Amino acid sequence: MPDLDPLLFGEIDPPQRLLMGPGPVNAHPRVLRAMSADLLGQFDPEMTGYMNQVMALYRPIFGTANEWTMLVDGTARAGIEAALVSLVAPGDTVLVVNFGRFGLLLTEILARIGAVVETVEAPWGEVVQLEAIGEAIHRVQPHVVATIHGDTSTTMAQPLDGLGELAHAAGALLYVDATATIGGMELAADRWGADVVTGGLQKCLGGPSGSAPITISPRSAEHIGRRRHVEQGIRRRDIADGQGPRIGSNYFDLAMIMDYWSEKRLNHHTEATSMLYAARECARIALGEGLEARYARHASAGRAMTVGLRAMGLTVFGDDAYRMTNVTGVHIPDGVDGEAVRTMMREAFEIEIGTAFGPLQGKIWRLGAMGYNAMKHKVLLTLAALEACLRAQGYAVPLGEAVPAALEAW
Amino acid sequence: MPDLDPLLFGEIDPPQRLLMGPGPVNAHPRVLRAMSADLLGQFDPEMTGYMNQVMALYRPIFGTANEWTMLVDGTARAGIEAALVSLVAPGDTVLVVNFGRFGLLLTEILARIGAVVETVEAPWGEVVQLEAIGEAIHRVQPHVVATIHGDTSTTMAQPLDGLGELAHAAGALLYVDATATIGGMELAADRWGADVVTGGLQKCLGGPSGSAPITISPRSAEHIGRRRHVEQGIRRRDIADGQGPRIGSNYFDLAMIMDYWSEKRLNHHTEATSMLYAARECARIALGEGLEARYARHASAGRAMTVGLRAMGLTVFGDDAYRMTNVTGVHIPDGVDGEAVRTMMREAFEIEIGTAFGPLQGKIWRLGAMGYNAMKHKVLLTLAALEACLRAQGYAVPLGEAVPAALEAW
Repeated sequence: MPDLDPLLFGEIDPPQRLLMGPGPVNAHPRVLRAMSADLLGQFDPEMTGYMNQVMALYRPIFGTANEWTMLVDGTARAGIEAALVSLVAPGDTVLVVNFGRFGLLLTEILARIGAVVETVEAPWGEVVQLEAIGEAIHRVQPHVVATIHGDTSTTMAQPLDGLGELAHAAGALLYVDATATIGGMELAADRWGADVVTGGLQKCLGGPSGSAPITISPRSAEHIGRRRHVEQGIRRRDIADGQGPRIGSNYFDLAMIMDYWSEKRLNHHTEATSMLYAARECARIALGEGLEARYARHASAGRAMTVGLRAMGLTVFGDDAYRMTNVTGVHIPDGVDGEAVRTMMREAFEIEIGTAFGPLQGKIWRLGAMGYNAMKHKVLLTLAALEACLRAQGYAVPLGEAVPAALEAW
Repeated sequence: MPDLDPLLFGEIDPPQRLLMGPGPVNAHPRVLRAMSADLLGQFDPEMTGYMNQVMALYRPIFGTANEWTMLVDGTARAGIEAALVSLVAPGDTVLVVNFGRFGLLLTEILARIGAVVETVEAPWGEVVQLEAIGEAIHRVQPHVVATIHGDTSTTMAQPLDGLGELAHAAGALLYVDATATIGGMELAADRWGADVVTGGLQKCLGGPSGSAPITISPRSAEHIGRRRHVEQGIRRRDIADGQGPRIGSNYFDLAMIMDYWSEKRLNHHTEATSMLYAARECARIALGEGLEARYARHASAGRAMTVGLRAMGLTVFGDDAYRMTNVTGVHIPDGVDGEAVRTMMREAFEIEIGTAFGPLQGKIWRLGAMGYNAMKHKVLLTLAALEACLRAQGYAVPLGEAVPAALEAW
């Protein structure tokens, strides 16, 4: 084995970089500090008390009264897979509302589960109309309808009011991934009629990736409970298995995770305590600010970013009517090397902006203003830096227009 | 929706408790501080640099030269499921070496994957002899042999030298879960011939739960690569899918996770940055101390704990020859209320000791001395407090014997 550097690579010391891409973004300092609190035993009364607080704190953030509102221990993608593998049995039909990369991710996860996957689609940069979804539900008779709320790959936010009603009328459950909107745009799980909604900390909640908030409606909790299968090593007489098909994953078995978060405290994984502290602090900050004020702040940031980009003569990507407030796509102008601009932004200004995926790769940049970074000065600094980088690339940017336009729009 | 407490439950402020159970334990303060560093974009050069450092730091800890040595973003259980779902296809035969609750967990996860599960067993408190494993391999001709290294439920450590050779001779791969031993007892992935080994931070590495170090041998990386399936949203011409059966999980697809940690940097999840900082610091602390010295410190702590418990007239659980060094089981004496003692330990001394699972529930306590808590003063304080609690319960404990005996044994 090769010898390691005697200093073992030195102390952790990341550059102080402003992350204005589609996430992850800089965490709120209070969240980072909360993670430095000491650990607790997983069934210590203070620990289970913190778990109960997390449940209470995330209900308003999801817009729900659901008892089962908690955390999945993994990144946002872990929350998505936990929801789908627990809701969907092999052979079930699922209708995916697909308007970007994360819609494709849903189809990918579902295919692995063994679901029959049907889609109703919109081109990247648009959303799917409720009427089209309704027709597709009628046509495919799904067990579950699954959609992304805000898909950062296209910067579009899918309207969800009325969708739960459509799904339920056809006997289907509704799953919504809200990773990119939670804490930044209104979530209304109960009003939407969404049965499971999942999120992540690393975007508008201003925390680190690694914990996935989730909420589960009574209807879907019952559905999932029918698939409960308690581990042999911890079986108890008072907790019976369900009769439904066993959930294909142990780690993502929401029936077991609910038993763990319930007063039964049935052992499952060892809760990721520091990440739970982070999730708790993210929620306290969001509720302390007030959700309405927080959503308005994200809307101001998105509006200022969009107006500023247009004042530079750039073309904003996608349908204005359905744009997410916290991330903006913008076309890379002809003749400009998109990666050279991103590199100069990082090296000269310590600002990160995002590249793109799939059909949009090399065509647009994505600029986020999320959580702790959805602030006036951060938007203005980003626009000023981008103007300088575009000029350095020889692009004929109107000088000094973006910042005042953005300031006015904020 | 009910109103939340206007103070939103207050600042995070856990009690300063000494966690002397089977884990989680108190994190090293350096690890907690490392997590308060600011975040980075997931493909920023400094971030990918930290990822590469983590790979280098964990190789000596696993006792391996394996290139693919990295993190799974979830708790230790996530690492186990990632290993098994990526190694084992539905219908494959797996031989589980089962000597405790976590052997049962392996059978449980494998059953959900759709494997044909065979076991070779030992009673709780013993280990399985290599000869018996060899006979079972010959009999069932498994695709994979899976075992726990140290099973905290029974406090036994399974000897693993020679097991890889036996498995490979029969054409099988060897998986080892080392969650409870990594950083506290020697791991020798290469010498054992183990193909995949997984761990967690929350025991002898002295970090928080939520990140699972993993190492993957070239042989098993090739096996897993044959099952690679790149997501539709991020396909590239230069990365082909494998011909093997698709891995049943997206989140736990080690082929994709290797692509993410490789220089291809193919997007998968958003790396849990704060947990990666924690994992990096755990490894720096362990290597800075020196692994030999660290294992010796855990052995001293375990020896002192065992001697001290016996000096109190208590009966230590399990086979002395195969005891883990970092957790000790001890019979709850007749007439003593085990939970009352645990409660008094917590309430009067702020010390947590562990209860037990399954057939040992209510019969033994489990006392750990792991990572930052495998220290002389913490072992002595725990023994002194336990003596006082046993006395308060009316047990005729020999007074003042345990501490000097433990001190001498250390």
